[in-house]
Amino acid sequence: MATTTETDAMRRAIALSARALGATSPNPVVGCVILDAAGEVAGEGWHRKAGGPHAEVHALRAAGDRARGGTALVTLEPCNHTGRTGPCAQALIEAGVARVVYAVADPSPQASGGAQTLRAAGVDTAGGLLAAEAEAVNTAWLTSVRLGRPHVRWKYAATLDGRIAAADGSSRWISSPQSRADVHRLRARCDAVVVGSGTLLADDPHLAVRGVEDAVQPLRVVVDTRARVTAGARVLDDAAPTLVAVGKDADTAHLPGVDVVRLPYGPDGTGLDVTALLAELHGRGVRSVLLEGGPTLAGAFVAAGAVDAVTGYLAPALLGAGPAALAGGGISTIAQALRLDVTDVARLGPDLRVTAVPTAQES
Amino acid sequence: MATTTETDAMRRAIALSARALGATSPNPVVGCVILDAAGEVAGEGWHRKAGGPHAEVHALRAAGDRARGGTALVTLEPCNHTGRTGPCAQALIEAGVARVVYAVADPSPQASGGAQTLRAAGVDTAGGLLAAEAEAVNTAWLTSVRLGRPHVRWKYAATLDGRIAAADGSSRWISSPQSRADVHRLRARCDAVVVGSGTLLADDPHLAVRGVEDAVQPLRVVVDTRARVTAGARVLDDAAPTLVAVGKDADTAHLPGVDVVRLPYGPDGTGLDVTALLAELHGRGVRSVLLEGGPTLAGAFVAAGAVDAVTGYLAPALLGAGPAALAGGGISTIAQALRLDVTDVARLGPDLRVTAVPTAQES
Ligand SMILES: NC(=O)c1ccc[n+]([C@@H]2O[C@H](COP(=O)([O-])OP(=O)(O)OC[C@H]3O[C@@H](n4cnc5c(N)ncnc54)[C@H](OP(=O)(O)O)[C@@H]3O)[C@@H](O)[C@H]2O)c1
Ligand SMILES: NC(=O)c1ccc[n+]([C@@H]2O[C@H](COP(=O)([O-])OP(=O)(O)OC[C@H]3O[C@@H](n4cnc5c(N)ncnc54)[C@H](OP(=O)(O)O)[C@@H]3O)[C@@H](O)[C@H]2O)c1
Repeated sequence: MATTTETDAMRRAIALSARALGATSPNPVVGCVILDAAGEVAGEGWHRKAGGPHAEVHALRAAGDRARGGTALVTLEPCNHTGRTGPCAQALIEAGVARVVYAVADPSPQASGGAQTLRAAGVDTAGGLLAAEAEAVNTAWLTSVRLGRPHVRWKYAATLDGRIAAADGSSRWISSPQSRADVHRLRARCDAVVVGSGTLLADDPHLAVRGVEDAVQPLRVVVDTRARVTAGARVLDDAAPTLVAVGKDADTAHLPGVDVVRLPYGPDGTGLDVTALLAELHGRGVRSVLLEGGPTLAGAFVAAGAVDAVTGYLAPALLGAGPAALAGGGISTIAQALRLDVTDVARLGPDLRVTAVPTAQES
Repeated sequence: MATTTETDAMRRAIALSARALGATSPNPVVGCVILDAAGEVAGEGWHRKAGGPHAEVHALRAAGDRARGGTALVTLEPCNHTGRTGPCAQALIEAGVARVVYAVADPSPQASGGAQTLRAAGVDTAGGLLAAEAEAVNTAWLTSVRLGRPHVRWKYAATLDGRIAAADGSSRWISSPQSRADVHRLRARCDAVVVGSGTLLADDPHLAVRGVEDAVQPLRVVVDTRARVTAGARVLDDAAPTLVAVGKDADTAHLPGVDVVRLPYGPDGTGLDVTALLAELHGRGVRSVLLEGGPTLAGAFVAAGAVDAVTGYLAPALLGAGPAALAGGGISTIAQALRLDVTDVARLGPDLRVTAVPTAQES
């Protein structure tokens, strides 16, 4: 059998890790491939869900005795702490692995130090292989560790002239069936889906994932200062968990049995504080948020500096009137524009999907 | 020397024709390749400017005696009428060409019939080879023949959220240098560039082509009901011809020596009538218009059903406030949206360029 290069094995480990996006929070996604001493694939695995075995454990189990003297390729530095599962650095040492190559160093204080432990045990250890690729897959989790709040992707669907609805408010359907199916894939990879009360009252959206195999349902979050959501709203069914965020003094008597959280008002006194909302979600284990609008709430996230990625579905149509995709945001002159870098452009049926991230600030 | 297939030769003829886009109106662009009896390229040519020799004449001159018994590949059906140059069908017959293959039939009543003339003279004649490719290059001229008015391409530059300026009106620069250079290439391929008085007064644009080799300057057209343009406006310099379209009773005493045309008011009484403007331009030999905005005038063109193509430069930035790319247009509900088909997506530096055409109506 042909031996596999370490780079190929790492690429495979990254692909395996991506399978669990949306299912592992508050943990990262991690993939692992074990090569035996002869360089043949002996085992592979990935972290499937929080509380379950780590990627290394899955892969070591699959490799059995063939791990001895072999090499482990891991997308994230093996952990050093004993959480719900034992430390992976220790498991690799005990299995007799001779070499460990990881892509990205673990930035979380409680888990890092794995590389040091491995080296102290005489294991040949290196980091950085395909780091950019591995980081891209784990970007939500890495962002959440860095910022101490969930990663936020703002998603919108608009016409080429930037409208999300016509003058009379009608908006079904601006985007194509292919784009709408893609939104379900985005949802499935996130821990929470967030909408404002305006969207809730206008559209009565359901927000659960449909049509994605093995999807873990995200937490549905309604940002609803005055608790205007009614008990019969579709978002309150049992297809997925739901959290309604309301203001300190909102009357929620009409929402018995609903998970409600009370949050402070935002800096300008209107609406809820975005930073407090994200802190609350982070505390609940949410590491990635899909912000599905509407334009007013998205503007508040922009103003709070809380948009880490943008996915725009652009329908090839012109309206010439109707609400714009983004409203507010506190930008008044061109020099203050939130500049982005386009990372991907795809055709989805008739539509374009544009993915972008805020341009790195000069430091 | 290797013989060339007819398809390869036609592809070459189409590429040659495209070189003269923007320079031949009111004529179409046409390219021609002559193969000798052995199938080798004997001559090629393209129509360079109105009043100059047609493509076939250039190619026949280059081929000389080698045209006898050969094949002519022409992007448009050879003309049959004696205009400023003799009929090309006759020239091909006299040169002894044995076979003529053209891509697109000539739809103009005064020039068509060339194929019939050729067949009557015993020349083996066929049409339709690479017709779609040839039509794409000649789309402005073909549209103008079909509709009896110039082809209109609406060009705009906007942020991802569809804004063309910030809340304070600042807009330099939304789009990248690469996009702005591309606009000059669009201008060079058009016969006229049109802007509204709002854009003129806000930006004092120059509208001439810069940085494109051998460009024929388009006619600069200002749509300015009340003749608000001042004599010192940059658009009135001598870098290119300029036409100022004004209302019937506008006072133009401050514009001595300026080419002014008086047009009727539009259907709703505000602004000039778009159909009358296009008829005036058509009468002046304009076959292709680049509508450069602003949003209000573009809305009037949409309302008049006079947008045949759209080129949007999308800058990866968010503004959340400021004027939208398109205003008005008479669309009030989603079912009336002007639906488009995206024909091309390109990256220009950081920007996206999206090219689209209105979806063909069911008939
Ligand atoms: N095409 C798309 O991608 C898309 C996506 C979503 C929505 N939409 C459309 O967007 C429209 C609704 O948009 P919208 O802008 O009116 O509503 P929205 O953004 O969904 O919700 C805005 C509301 O959220 C509440 N809110 C709570 N905290 C806030 C804060 N910090 N900042 C701002 N708002 C906060 C406020 O109401 P309270 O104070 O009462 O809580 C506010 O009025 C609908 O027509 C919908 O169809 C389109
Ligand atoms: N980013 C871009 O691609 C781009 C391109 C162009 C402009 N802009 C920006 O757009 C802004 C100006 O836009 P705008 O919408 O105010 O002005 P505009 O569309 O350039 O001009 C509108 C004016 O044209 C005149 N007009 C004549 N006939 C008309 C008709 N049939 N329909 C509508 N208008 C007619 C009207 O004024 P009168 O009645 O007085 O003649 C009207 O107010 C500026 O800020 C400029 O920077 C951006």
